[in-house]
Amino acid sequence: MLTQRFFIELGYDGTAYSGWQRQPNARSVQEVIETALSKIHGGMAIPLVGCGRTDAGVHARFFVAHAALPIETDVVQLKHKLNKMLPCDIVIFRAYQVADDMHARFQASSRTYRYYLHQEKDPFLKNSLFFVGKLDVDRMNEAARYLLGIQDFTSFSKLHTDVKTNFCTITNAVWHSQGNQLYFEITADRFLRNMVRAIVGTLLEVGVGKIQPAEIPLIIAAKDRSAAKLSVEARGLFLWDISYPVGT
Amino acid sequence: MLTQRFFIELGYDGTAYSGWQRQPNARSVQEVIETALSKIHGGMAIPLVGCGRTDAGVHARFFVAHAALPIETDVVQLKHKLNKMLPCDIVIFRAYQVADDMHARFQASSRTYRYYLHQEKDPFLKNSLFFVGKLDVDRMNEAARYLLGIQDFTSFSKLHTDVKTNFCTITNAVWHSQGNQLYFEITADRFLRNMVRAIVGTLLEVGVGKIQPAEIPLIIAAKDRSAAKLSVEARGLFLWDISYPVGT
Repeated sequence: MLTQRFFIELGYDGTAYSGWQRQPNARSVQEVIETALSKIHGGMAIPLVGCGRTDAGVHARFFVAHAALPIETDVVQLKHKLNKMLPCDIVIFRAYQVADDMHARFQASSRTYRYYLHQEKDPFLKNSLFFVGKLDVDRMNEAARYLLGIQDFTSFSKLHTDVKTNFCTITNAVWHSQGNQLYFEITADRFLRNMVRAIVGTLLEVGVGKIQPAEIPLIIAAKDRSAAKLSVEARGLFLWDISYPVGT
Repeated sequence: MLTQRFFIELGYDGTAYSGWQRQPNARSVQEVIETALSKIHGGMAIPLVGCGRTDAGVHARFFVAHAALPIETDVVQLKHKLNKMLPCDIVIFRAYQVADDMHARFQASSRTYRYYLHQEKDPFLKNSLFFVGKLDVDRMNEAARYLLGIQDFTSFSKLHTDVKTNFCTITNAVWHSQGNQLYFEITADRFLRNMVRAIVGTLLEVGVGKIQPAEIPLIIAAKDRSAAKLSVEARGLFLWDISYPVGT
């Protein structure tokens, strides 16, 4: 059967999943979609390559995966079939054919994450951290500016990961207010494991006055995870957007 | 101990509860709050009287309950203590002293419910019905207008309830669009059990063209639950607001 590479754009609420990545003895987003794709294609295995991993409980407002699908695939029908089969917490936005050298992970030029929190108890904000304590948002933004540029983010990375380099280029890192929520938006070419949650945990310590904005460069320079602060919960974290170079 | 009647204003996400009302072998909102109140008051039982019942899975954006509390109660402290003890999906907005003849249920002059639905799959809209099928909202609103006024709503009530009369006065019943959601808002002096969900289920049948707006008066006149259509799921239903007469 002739196949062609397709991009699939999707979103999911990660609450009920062990993350994007397939793993033994846990329900992952990848596995649930691959199972549906396989059913649609008469049992044929259709592996997905995601644009990244998200950890257990982390959400994706926008996620991209690629797969080899039969060249005659009707992308509109595929989207409808998948959305019918997939549970409520995973949605397919679009599928489209791409060149065979387009790679959902390697070609992505930037990723944006958002971390949401709220300070007044609200029963309907489940995908948001409930944070008690007065926060100085100006100081948090002052601290966030020290993250910009090309730097080694070892201090904000989970230990013992298998990446070759811990350098990332951060192009945007700002706290915003939205209704009764506060969110941190950060864009980079790449992120290390646990990086956004460790950064948010550290900036919250700035917000409550436990550390100073000017300490951020020292924390980065330490290249030591213990120099930064604790990670925040997964519930407030969303992979928000992914960019691919124009013309690819 | 001298006690005085207090109103407690609260909200909850009903997903994890068997409803407001305490019942054996099930976790109710009432029970969870009464348990917290009792702990705060050294084990003394503090019964709550709610402004109404909500069924299993139904939410309350705004709910009022009354209780007899020690006359020296500091309402701001009480609110903070309760919010700390209560789970994330229940929040106390305010507590305040009222006259001893103020009754959260009997004095309420009107109640407003909203029912939310969406038509494009969205993983983050959990408290909303995902409804597939083209809806004619103008016709749904034409049908909703037949609900207004003082009428016997037996056709939209659960059978075998113990109320004395099935007459309700509906003063507002309109469908609205909001972002990628559609919601139905209905206000009445009182509601029968299951009434909003049976009304929404019936209006959706109007929306897809299975029944005509002009059939609504006939359905009401039948005074027979089987004349109306199936109830919709609890997940999209919110007790939205409650009014008490000015000056009480």
